[in-house]
Amino acid sequence: MNHVVIGTLAFDSIETPYDKRERAIGGSATYFAHAASKFGPVGLVGVVGQDFPDEVLEDFRGRGIDIEGVEHAEGESFFWAGRYEADWNTRHTLETRLNVFADFDPKLPESYRDADFVFLANGAPAIQRKALDQVRSPRLVVADTMNLWIDIARDELIDLLGRIDGLVLNDEEARMLTGEANLFRAAGKILEMGPKFIVLKKGEHGAFLFGEEHRFALPAYPVDNVVDPTGAGDSFAGGFMGYLAHTASLDPSSQRAAMLYGTVTASFCVEGFSTEEIGLHGRGAVDRRYDALRAFVTP
Amino acid sequence: MNHVVIGTLAFDSIETPYDKRERAIGGSATYFAHAASKFGPVGLVGVVGQDFPDEVLEDFRGRGIDIEGVEHAEGESFFWAGRYEADWNTRHTLETRLNVFADFDPKLPESYRDADFVFLANGAPAIQRKALDQVRSPRLVVADTMNLWIDIARDELIDLLGRIDGLVLNDEEARMLTGEANLFRAAGKILEMGPKFIVLKKGEHGAFLFGEEHRFALPAYPVDNVVDPTGAGDSFAGGFMGYLAHTASLDPSSQRAAMLYGTVTASFCVEGFSTEEIGLHGRGAVDRRYDALRAFVTP
Repeated sequence: MNHVVIGTLAFDSIETPYDKRERAIGGSATYFAHAASKFGPVGLVGVVGQDFPDEVLEDFRGRGIDIEGVEHAEGESFFWAGRYEADWNTRHTLETRLNVFADFDPKLPESYRDADFVFLANGAPAIQRKALDQVRSPRLVVADTMNLWIDIARDELIDLLGRIDGLVLNDEEARMLTGEANLFRAAGKILEMGPKFIVLKKGEHGAFLFGEEHRFALPAYPVDNVVDPTGAGDSFAGGFMGYLAHTASLDPSSQRAAMLYGTVTASFCVEGFSTEEIGLHGRGAVDRRYDALRAFVTP
Repeated sequence: MNHVVIGTLAFDSIETPYDKRERAIGGSATYFAHAASKFGPVGLVGVVGQDFPDEVLEDFRGRGIDIEGVEHAEGESFFWAGRYEADWNTRHTLETRLNVFADFDPKLPESYRDADFVFLANGAPAIQRKALDQVRSPRLVVADTMNLWIDIARDELIDLLGRIDGLVLNDEEARMLTGEANLFRAAGKILEMGPKFIVLKKGEHGAFLFGEEHRFALPAYPVDNVVDPTGAGDSFAGGFMGYLAHTASLDPSSQRAAMLYGTVTASFCVEGFSTEEIGLHGRGAVDRRYDALRAFVTP
């Protein structure tokens, strides 16, 4: 398995101003793997409880998502409940139950340990490192993080930053990690902490790629009808990594194309609850939207 | 005079979290004309009081800003005082004194009435229309507006929209004008009101161009050190219109280039108070930043 993601499989209960869903299938690795699978196979490392339906994992497998790395544990699966306000940027967490994820100790199947492309989805930096330790000689390691870890596990996170190639985070997290209000200065400071590049997500305002000598800015895809933003960041990461793993190239022009593909997979994600929309579209639809996005942003 | 702007000349007292200025030269037409003058001559229609220094108008003239359309009235010039919060997006108006602008009745010099390119800077729609009535057969008329006019002069604004080619406004104003939260749907509704295109400004998040068949998205130029955002929107419009007036082309690729030039002139504007920075740089510096921006956004 050349491309591997380590993250959560979850049930999400979501309220938006217009609709809601109870216990829909979610989790960072679910969204990432759905997006990445448009480009080729991806191996999934995570844990589910006894309540997670086998049919869902079978459906994953049918999409080219390898589930050998999914551990089955006693108890209930990770559960998250949240509510969005009408601006979509304000999200209230109503409930988080870690359940089987509380004791998650990632174990990569032997066939995953030679992976070239590794994505460490949002999780405790110590667990991210534990997973990374099991990969022999990855070509590209990208990690996600969140304000919680910047707050309570800063040292472990800084330690991890010295071992990864790319970091994905949002504008607020970049400011929090560096204490720098200006995003471009914040990005510069994060590069000094270790990563070769960072992907700075700005939700409906798009994303920036910052490398040592290479910077690229991209707006979000113009979605007329946002249904549920949950998973947009992970779907972005999945399209970004999936494309790079597929082309096996890391040069600046491939990274730019990967940013466009990530933007496209994220746009499908937000058009439905759970994986309803992102699960619906194949590579052809992804490429058509990629072409439209390219036309939308090319000077 | 082929390119004309109608707007304000003002004194601004500005506080930012880091610095402040008392009675600095400002006003929508001042910023617009400074940006537009990088590309060629521009005629300025506005009114000043007895307190407005002649040297400032002489300096304008030296930059290729024609001041024949500047009326001198009894009394004090337009005055605005404002304060910015650390996020730069939150702006508090501390004081507005219309002074001589309260009775402004725009009169275009004969030499301005054959202008092809006309910018109606933010002002009461009735006054914008009065100015427009004096231009014989413009090729491109673009207007700016603000929440105040959407609120208190909606009918006159809607009437004006039927007579202009382009409208410049920010995201909040687009939502307010249409009652539509989604920006892309809001833009579609504004196009139905008359303009052939709209430029949707999103501050630090860049700008969108929406035409009937042509859409283009652009992030802001990555400015490391914002000093004062006052005038950024007018400087954007000045670069946008100045470039189009200079090339005398309105095709999609010229409009895209104009969006980049507007982004560049706005970026110089925010790097200093008043016209300190935007006044400093010539076309060469503008073109260098244009090239950098183009590289930053090209997929």
